[in-house]
Amino acid sequence: MVTGSELVRGERTDLNGPFLARSLLSVGLEPARIEVVGDDPGELETALRDALASADLVACSGGLGPTHDDRTVEIVAKVAGLELRIDEELEAQIEDVSRLVAERLKRPYADFAVGVRKQATLPSGAACLGLAGTAPGLVVDAHGTPIVVLPGPPAELQRLWPKALEVAAVRRVLDRGTPPLRRTLRFFGPGESQVAQAFQESGGDGDGLEVTICARDFEIHIDLVAEPAAEKRMAALESALGERLGRFLYSTDGRTVEELVLDRCRDRGFRMATAESCTGGLIAARLTSVPGSTDAIVGGIVAYANKVKVEQLGVAPELIDEHGAVSAQVAEAMARGARERLGVDVAVSVTGIAGPEGGTEEKPVGLVYFHAETPDGGHGSQFNFPGDRDSIRRRSVVASLHLVRRLLEQNRDGSV
Amino acid sequence: MVTGSELVRGERTDLNGPFLARSLLSVGLEPARIEVVGDDPGELETALRDALASADLVACSGGLGPTHDDRTVEIVAKVAGLELRIDEELEAQIEDVSRLVAERLKRPYADFAVGVRKQATLPSGAACLGLAGTAPGLVVDAHGTPIVVLPGPPAELQRLWPKALEVAAVRRVLDRGTPPLRRTLRFFGPGESQVAQAFQESGGDGDGLEVTICARDFEIHIDLVAEPAAEKRMAALESALGERLGRFLYSTDGRTVEELVLDRCRDRGFRMATAESCTGGLIAARLTSVPGSTDAIVGGIVAYANKVKVEQLGVAPELIDEHGAVSAQVAEAMARGARERLGVDVAVSVTGIAGPEGGTEEKPVGLVYFHAETPDGGHGSQFNFPGDRDSIRRRSVVASLHLVRRLLEQNRDGSV
Repeated sequence: MVTGSELVRGERTDLNGPFLARSLLSVGLEPARIEVVGDDPGELETALRDALASADLVACSGGLGPTHDDRTVEIVAKVAGLELRIDEELEAQIEDVSRLVAERLKRPYADFAVGVRKQATLPSGAACLGLAGTAPGLVVDAHGTPIVVLPGPPAELQRLWPKALEVAAVRRVLDRGTPPLRRTLRFFGPGESQVAQAFQESGGDGDGLEVTICARDFEIHIDLVAEPAAEKRMAALESALGERLGRFLYSTDGRTVEELVLDRCRDRGFRMATAESCTGGLIAARLTSVPGSTDAIVGGIVAYANKVKVEQLGVAPELIDEHGAVSAQVAEAMARGARERLGVDVAVSVTGIAGPEGGTEEKPVGLVYFHAETPDGGHGSQFNFPGDRDSIRRRSVVASLHLVRRLLEQNRDGSV
Repeated sequence: MVTGSELVRGERTDLNGPFLARSLLSVGLEPARIEVVGDDPGELETALRDALASADLVACSGGLGPTHDDRTVEIVAKVAGLELRIDEELEAQIEDVSRLVAERLKRPYADFAVGVRKQATLPSGAACLGLAGTAPGLVVDAHGTPIVVLPGPPAELQRLWPKALEVAAVRRVLDRGTPPLRRTLRFFGPGESQVAQAFQESGGDGDGLEVTICARDFEIHIDLVAEPAAEKRMAALESALGERLGRFLYSTDGRTVEELVLDRCRDRGFRMATAESCTGGLIAARLTSVPGSTDAIVGGIVAYANKVKVEQLGVAPELIDEHGAVSAQVAEAMARGARERLGVDVAVSVTGIAGPEGGTEEKPVGLVYFHAETPDGGHGSQFNFPGDRDSIRRRSVVASLHLVRRLLEQNRDGSV
């Protein structure tokens, strides 16, 4: 249960529900629902009662702050039928933290005192998980079902969550679950219907094996979750899918395409750079989001304006005049320019029309050209993506990374 | 209600719930809950019944595809007590689309036929909203409450949703709501406690005015939602907050910091570029995410490796040797280099330690230096961010954009 009016109104995307779901799944509990509710006390109470009606464990996030609309602890106490009282030891701890903050902000501590008292008020019997900022994480017993109460900011929630998994009441629930076997097959290229067909031909799921097929930015991920007894069945399905869709399969060990691109570069001691127009830095950002990427990626040029394509990447102005900035020729010149100017082995470029303006009949919104260069040669491709500006940019990032990955894998295998 | 095992298991972030919530809010309906559920038929049915128990309108997304785990239409029909039957006209339409796809994928149409029949099977009396890909959007009457059934891919959902708002059954619900007055005040700089205090001193909310305070990547957004009768009360609160927190207030009209930076550049005919190390392209990506940004941002250099800082941005190697790549001096040289090399008026740079590795006692993970340069002068800043790699990078993007914004606003006002 994730609380926050800004979340239920769609002004912010919830990260906590997905994080908690992944974590619970990995320890053998099946996430039944993620409920996002606002700060309205009535809605909060109903949602919490609905959750308690069927779940073995409830994890809540948000509403622990010092402000008036932070009501989670109060509602949890009400639903669990527990009294609220000030924990004086905790109050002293929160006061210490708040005095440091007050000092840093050059504000009197008095401004913080009310909030400190509020944050130190707990349902009786609650196990405290420690502080995240000034907010305590808690485990509360609601008539035998543990409710884990966590702060809203994702980094703070993620820090306190492992401590919740050690609390005896939570451990007792975990001991009832069995971590399932899991496997994710990642494909790039096939259509969703084609995957559905291959899945049916391979025998489908059932009998302790559950399969989810999920299309995402032109990738398709097949998620296999099996009870321990269905291990052989899972292996058989995986192998049957591999027979039918093997040429599209790029990852079976959870690695993402950006991780694979970096690893393929490392395999051959290559360094890499990007040359981006419509993606505006997203490809470089995706590659550098991987910790330790610094040994494979040196950086890139965001050549949004033509002037930058010419001056920083050495694209000939005549090429732009003749073919347009969005063309296979300019994509190739951008990749070659990045390789040369940044002194790297591998470069990938993107130029396209992300919209909503700028499309023509000949070159519509969604038309994107890609080019990758390696020491063994180069290769270009083009796509005509559906969707809005944001999804065209995201799909372009994915397509560009697969282009480099495939080129590096082909070169490695000696076949093109 | 958002369906998908990959969503409830946290493998993908839901974008549809937030989109639908924002849209409903803007037409006068208060979103009560966003429920994310898996593909399990029992869970789907319970969640749909819970939703129908209290809501005036239910919008569902996902589970309309051709694969075995797409069960939404079947469950909606069951809960609404309606028969399922094949709509032959619709089947012909879906077949036309599928034949084109089959041709493009060079696959026989027979592979698609089962999926086509499945997707053309509707609850009786359903209003069809048209196709997204091969999936029809629907409005189904569940004992007087309309259920809008939409495809899962966000771009497709967003295309069909406006059509749902025109269906008579949905219109009747909308006619009962009154669009509230809304206002978002965006602040950069104050602590959450400080804002809570200012809010209490300003009279708080209630009496038809609801206020949400939301901290996000070091920004604080105060969202005011008022019934039409509370218009004066909203204006009074806004003005009282402005008195107390005015120096941190940067936006009252919904514009984001990236939009403001672009607009401030446009005001003075400036062109801008970025020089990024630890953010790896995210600042350029954020600026170019705004449609029409091309008249203010030319691009940037992602100088992840020191070699790129030296060669592309002209940072003196001695500066790196003496102060380290993560230093105020190198940040300044990067911004000056970007301004000169890319021939722009305004440049902003970031260099820092995003972790998880690479921190030292003197320069810990989270230490980030910023520098902005304009024709009127430059300014640097530094932060020591808490959090993981991803949040350090996101906070760095926000901090860098505010640095440029403030420098451009100060220069404009003549005061520094």
